[in-house]
Amino acid sequence: MDSMSRIKKIFNHCDPSIDAIVIKNGSEPFIDSMFFYVTGIPTGLFEGCAAIIYPDKPMQLIVSSLEEDLAKQASAETLVYETSKEFYDLLQQCTSTCNTIGLSFKNITFSDYITISKKLSRVTFQDISSAFISARMRKDDFELSRIEKACTIADKVMENIAQFIRIGMTERDLSAEIDFHLMRYGADAPAFETISSFGTHTALPHYSHGDRSLSQGDLIICDFGARVDRYHSDMTRTFVFGSASNHQKTMHQVVLHAQEKGIQLIREGVIAKDVHQHVFDTIEETEFSGRFIHSTGHSLGLMVHDGGIGFNSQCSLPLEKDMVLTVEPGIYIPHVGGVRIEDDIVVTKNGCRMLTSSNRDLIEI
Amino acid sequence: MDSMSRIKKIFNHCDPSIDAIVIKNGSEPFIDSMFFYVTGIPTGLFEGCAAIIYPDKPMQLIVSSLEEDLAKQASAETLVYETSKEFYDLLQQCTSTCNTIGLSFKNITFSDYITISKKLSRVTFQDISSAFISARMRKDDFELSRIEKACTIADKVMENIAQFIRIGMTERDLSAEIDFHLMRYGADAPAFETISSFGTHTALPHYSHGDRSLSQGDLIICDFGARVDRYHSDMTRTFVFGSASNHQKTMHQVVLHAQEKGIQLIREGVIAKDVHQHVFDTIEETEFSGRFIHSTGHSLGLMVHDGGIGFNSQCSLPLEKDMVLTVEPGIYIPHVGGVRIEDDIVVTKNGCRMLTSSNRDLIEI
Repeated sequence: MDSMSRIKKIFNHCDPSIDAIVIKNGSEPFIDSMFFYVTGIPTGLFEGCAAIIYPDKPMQLIVSSLEEDLAKQASAETLVYETSKEFYDLLQQCTSTCNTIGLSFKNITFSDYITISKKLSRVTFQDISSAFISARMRKDDFELSRIEKACTIADKVMENIAQFIRIGMTERDLSAEIDFHLMRYGADAPAFETISSFGTHTALPHYSHGDRSLSQGDLIICDFGARVDRYHSDMTRTFVFGSASNHQKTMHQVVLHAQEKGIQLIREGVIAKDVHQHVFDTIEETEFSGRFIHSTGHSLGLMVHDGGIGFNSQCSLPLEKDMVLTVEPGIYIPHVGGVRIEDDIVVTKNGCRMLTSSNRDLIEI
Repeated sequence: MDSMSRIKKIFNHCDPSIDAIVIKNGSEPFIDSMFFYVTGIPTGLFEGCAAIIYPDKPMQLIVSSLEEDLAKQASAETLVYETSKEFYDLLQQCTSTCNTIGLSFKNITFSDYITISKKLSRVTFQDISSAFISARMRKDDFELSRIEKACTIADKVMENIAQFIRIGMTERDLSAEIDFHLMRYGADAPAFETISSFGTHTALPHYSHGDRSLSQGDLIICDFGARVDRYHSDMTRTFVFGSASNHQKTMHQVVLHAQEKGIQLIREGVIAKDVHQHVFDTIEETEFSGRFIHSTGHSLGLMVHDGGIGFNSQCSLPLEKDMVLTVEPGIYIPHVGGVRIEDDIVVTKNGCRMLTSSNRDLIEI
């Protein structure tokens, strides 16, 4: 992992007047994933810690004594504090020659901003939120290797899922099995709260899992991912328990067709919202008009929703090589059921490369 | 769940000039757990949504259309937005008669603060972070019932842990088994990244799990909890794989004795740091002087570290009835191993009630 090239990417998106950027974590859950983007440290919480990056000299970390050992994994000068006063004394020393400091106003608490601006009272602060988002949109080789590993693990669980689905099991039981296998195959943790919905619950795209039991003829949506060194995968398949009805088969065919149409369109230079529109229109032209009720995909990386770019109606950004996104059309019929198929792709010059690839057919279990 | 009494508790800790409090979530992970404290909504993410609470009238929620259904679980007037502009129009309408609004400066991003203060330009803002923390310190019956359920689940997994420990398994395998059983017994998710460390890794209190395999004679630390309706448990036991050495037995006896001494001291009115000091001194008086390197415990609730009060050297607050805390002394000998025992308790008038209770002996597996 090459901190210097990431830091260079960040400063390329910033005003040249900026002398340093301070990334300051709050208390859980107010932790800035940029801290891990610049340091590459794969484990540890780093509450209250800070990273200071410069355009022209090595990064400095201010960490609590608890995290001193973990911090050594980063290519940085590490400074250790015990008390809040010590933290701010170190921050003042590190930035004593800075006139303009960048902060991500979106990723820092108001309370931390107030304290920092008091302690560094002669400094001008600039919001560099958008530089952070821009820098992360294209993934480097280190990031791609982690995402690929996370995708391989999720794929493997998905391929084996039929083996642990049985009549009468609850959605929660299936989630437990999925999470167990994600970890057994090498995930540090599930990427997010695993979705395993049965029957009419599949019509709710944001439902996770509950105590509903599996019945004959139920649609089953499994939407999950693996986390590897803080990077994520995110994939979905839809199954039927028993024989699929013609209606279920048609829903599935439409979603699969829409996903394929979207994937075929993806390549460097294509506008993100055009991919969404194409997928959306493909479903609109069928009997399931009005039943695709979310965006087609989101970027993926250190966060499951990594920001910056997405296949949605608002996003006018062009796709660039090495962006990683999900492609996940779905059809949802309230009180009946839903179908969603989701894969992760990385954009290439002439198309895209599939990062997840397990069987997309409607599998009858 | 009684929103009104919680909201009353919050305003009791606020300046009477405050007309309303706005709780505004950012994007993941910048979600304020107070949103769930006041609404009691057990599932859903609620990114970008807001709750507005008043001392004298019902709460209002401003939620995206995605979360409209979930929001109905709260006793609140629900207003739905599609765009950011609509969100702020609704916020302006709701607060149009307010002169002073409370915000938790610790739980809101600087970027959200800037936007809110621009949109509500005639309003004075007050930091009510400490009122939020104070209100949550004593748990109500609804909260206690969830924490108790989370404790019962963790206890049950701990009691059965010997059954799924086997030679050669990795720390990650054991984590996977623990998480699987937490969910099978009814947890919504593990409370945090499960710690299962073997051998010399047990000497690192903040290590979670890796690829180390279990060997004969290893100490095993299992530190985990369950999440139930957003409430948490958090417990630790130490095992030995094979026969315990005399040194391991002595370490365990000292930790158990220190924990018991701490628990015996807990009751309403006792100062939190005195409990820590007592536990600390108990270990200091033994051959393991200098080996207890963290605080004795933290509060527990909607967050695993719920804030406000803790058994540490800094906390001069008196214990009050219905506070829930962990008691978790440990001994850590670098490159050798560690022992930790952790239980969750609720403070009562004359002592405390144990919420976790599975066997505290040093079990040889």
